[in-house]
Amino acid sequence: MSKGITSRETDYSQWYNELVVKADLAEHSAVRGCMVIKPYGYAIWEKMQAALDKMFKDTGHSNAYFPLFIPKSFFSKEASHVEGFATECAVVTHYRLKNDGSGNIVVDEEAKLEEELIVRPTSETIIWNTYKGWIESYRDLPLLINQWANVVRWEMRTRLFLRTAEFLWQEGHTAHATQEEAVAEAEQMLGVYADFAENWMALPVVRGRKTENERFAGALDTLCIEALMQDGKALQAGTSHFLGQNFAKAFDVKFTAKDGKLDYVWATSWGVSTRLMGALIMAHSDDQGLVLPPKLAPIQVVIVPIYKTEAERQVIGGLADTLIAELKAKAISVKYDDRDTHRPGFKFAEWELKGVPVRIAVGTRDMQNGTVEIARRDTQAKETVPQTGLADRVEQLLEDIQRDIYDRAAAFREANTVEVDTYEAFKQVLDEKGGFVAAHWDGTVETEKLIKEETKATIRCIPLNSKMEEGTCIRTGRPSTQRVLFARAY
Amino acid sequence: MSKGITSRETDYSQWYNELVVKADLAEHSAVRGCMVIKPYGYAIWEKMQAALDKMFKDTGHSNAYFPLFIPKSFFSKEASHVEGFATECAVVTHYRLKNDGSGNIVVDEEAKLEEELIVRPTSETIIWNTYKGWIESYRDLPLLINQWANVVRWEMRTRLFLRTAEFLWQEGHTAHATQEEAVAEAEQMLGVYADFAENWMALPVVRGRKTENERFAGALDTLCIEALMQDGKALQAGTSHFLGQNFAKAFDVKFTAKDGKLDYVWATSWGVSTRLMGALIMAHSDDQGLVLPPKLAPIQVVIVPIYKTEAERQVIGGLADTLIAELKAKAISVKYDDRDTHRPGFKFAEWELKGVPVRIAVGTRDMQNGTVEIARRDTQAKETVPQTGLADRVEQLLEDIQRDIYDRAAAFREANTVEVDTYEAFKQVLDEKGGFVAAHWDGTVETEKLIKEETKATIRCIPLNSKMEEGTCIRTGRPSTQRVLFARAY
Repeated sequence: MSKGITSRETDYSQWYNELVVKADLAEHSAVRGCMVIKPYGYAIWEKMQAALDKMFKDTGHSNAYFPLFIPKSFFSKEASHVEGFATECAVVTHYRLKNDGSGNIVVDEEAKLEEELIVRPTSETIIWNTYKGWIESYRDLPLLINQWANVVRWEMRTRLFLRTAEFLWQEGHTAHATQEEAVAEAEQMLGVYADFAENWMALPVVRGRKTENERFAGALDTLCIEALMQDGKALQAGTSHFLGQNFAKAFDVKFTAKDGKLDYVWATSWGVSTRLMGALIMAHSDDQGLVLPPKLAPIQVVIVPIYKTEAERQVIGGLADTLIAELKAKAISVKYDDRDTHRPGFKFAEWELKGVPVRIAVGTRDMQNGTVEIARRDTQAKETVPQTGLADRVEQLLEDIQRDIYDRAAAFREANTVEVDTYEAFKQVLDEKGGFVAAHWDGTVETEKLIKEETKATIRCIPLNSKMEEGTCIRTGRPSTQRVLFARAY
Repeated sequence: MSKGITSRETDYSQWYNELVVKADLAEHSAVRGCMVIKPYGYAIWEKMQAALDKMFKDTGHSNAYFPLFIPKSFFSKEASHVEGFATECAVVTHYRLKNDGSGNIVVDEEAKLEEELIVRPTSETIIWNTYKGWIESYRDLPLLINQWANVVRWEMRTRLFLRTAEFLWQEGHTAHATQEEAVAEAEQMLGVYADFAENWMALPVVRGRKTENERFAGALDTLCIEALMQDGKALQAGTSHFLGQNFAKAFDVKFTAKDGKLDYVWATSWGVSTRLMGALIMAHSDDQGLVLPPKLAPIQVVIVPIYKTEAERQVIGGLADTLIAELKAKAISVKYDDRDTHRPGFKFAEWELKGVPVRIAVGTRDMQNGTVEIARRDTQAKETVPQTGLADRVEQLLEDIQRDIYDRAAAFREANTVEVDTYEAFKQVLDEKGGFVAAHWDGTVETEKLIKEETKATIRCIPLNSKMEEGTCIRTGRPSTQRVLFARAY
């Protein structure tokens, strides 16, 4: 098959857009800003979901489901939240259509809602309104709940996975008796996200804290993981918020403590979304197509027979049957591609495009020699190996690939993270190669906005492991005690 | 704990409403008609999802995700579909809110959509509009896709799980090259649903075909499974539709057949929803609370220690640790309830209410005797048994309970399915005990509607195993060749 994907070098953005569609991950729908997630893309998302869901449950969380709609008035209850979320969103105003008599379907103006409903852009308000009925005493706490759901934010400029009007996500919403416990929960969930990004997505991330300006609307503290894409732009891959008592106060959620005292409940919320699909693609893939870490690949191994006659095909098929059984016994997902409608070269290109980590090709000579050809998608390395012990070799290879993909991404990030001390150097790095730039900043929102205006770089985070260090702000020369991480970002 | 649930005898409907809330399954939300599915209820739904999802994948289906919103005009494209679905639904007309200057959040009238969007009540239209881009030739067929999603139908009278404005479901949408294949698919999926209902939900179902009048809007044939609730009312538990070429024609989806001929694609769709939760509850539960089949119970075994001193608690705890490890090794989910805030009697009542299939109580005398008390939720039977071999015994007991719950429901249905040959007898059966009534009907929509008007009974289905038999319509006396199944229904 001809891939015809624009190279990353030529136009990274175009490369991404084309790859998402050509690899059958997703496509634009007839509804502006909304995507269709195709089966192959959704299979990756399901693997992400399964891994995350297990991590959430292992840390004591339960899933639940809250309404899609939120009464408009709920958004006014938490002052800073409304600014952040109640503007660009889908508004339901009517609940009936009718035939206008001439065969046209029109909105029935008589079926107007008394109060408009907002399609949830995030669920803090409806959930805290519900928690009011669930929490009376410290015995009801902590309340550790997660929801897998669709949300809608009316984005004007959309890109598949990265920014869509509707997207899929999970949102955790927890309630605690003390500030310490809520802070610890927000930190724990950031750890879960970082663990998932690094060990499943093979994506190294910086754990950090957002500046006040970049915080979630309604949060006292927003923790985040930030990843670096191959074009040198950063991508926020997950956030975990300490919400203080803001939502408890907005929805009047109090509890009786052990000592009988009445107090507002402490909250966190945390989420990751189908945006992670975008991060996964942009971090590892190449001009030949997707490169998927084995742990998230829907198909981990593809076997392609190379034959001329039906007899040859039968013989190779026999080997394949055995091998498939051995791989499945190791919980390795395998596809045997013996379509007779396509040539081997076409199949190779197709599975390359789709990022299948390991390809095994078996021809007639291989059958004579007791070998197969094994190819890694990530490095394109090929090797002829014995059929004996192949399943063990493949199992090991998948582990190697998972680790190597991570290592390459980590090396790339390492090579593209620099410390700069002047504004000139800062701008030069951003323009020449991008990446993470660690620099001093005076701590004010004004300077942060100024730098963004002048360079399009934002403060991605104040890294949690950032050491204290005297310095001067690259823009204003004012004193600073810690470097923060700047980047241009998705 | 005091349950205070109305008995089924007193008011079945009230019993159901109270049980759903008291057993922590779901509750009404602040949004009219929308429910909150609480963690315990959602855990049951997750078990249903996992079992169904595996069955769908085992039959070759993949999951995907399509937009929440559907352009209004799409509903006009399939004539009969619009009648059925485009009336009572949530309509998005605007995409922005704003502050009106005096602090109130109002809809920004300038941000009006050019074309209103409908929150999906079902996704045939948006999916077939998408399939147009995916299907060119017979090589692209069959297309076997399922979606797990939320849908909205603006119901005026709602009941938790049974009828809510927003509900969760799965909808399968398949495309085929031939009519035969599509028909076979619709039948296969009905089989999957029946298998799930009977073997997981312990719910015997009648497999049947809807009358033309009760068909899905846009279908040529609607297959269904129908279950009987304890109050003698029927409940439709799943439907599988053969859609013919209706949607392919509406959205112009053609394919090139092997012989080069261009033809419209054949379609099916099939779905089950959170309504199954209602069926599960109403079929098996009793005045003490939920009765859950072990295969769908989030907690299959609860262990309650009975102690006076901390030393006694320690000793029992030691036994519990061993037992829990043994049960977990058998993939049996178990909870050890050693809360010191509640007495054993309270705990017994609580786990009874929540339908945990097996309760194990261990007291100090048990520890002396090497025994435990084991109680079945479904029959309330208690037995004192040796600690030795307990895990094996519990495993067997869970299987027995699963089977017995099914058998009781099957016996109940058997006892409440009668054949009648006169309209008098028909009405008498319906009024006195309800249940399924097998009767002759003249095959006309008029008579069907008349009977519904006069008796509130509908034709649930024409059972697939119904034998041909000469008879006369109970209402009109006209000739009939087959009995159909009537019932009052949810």
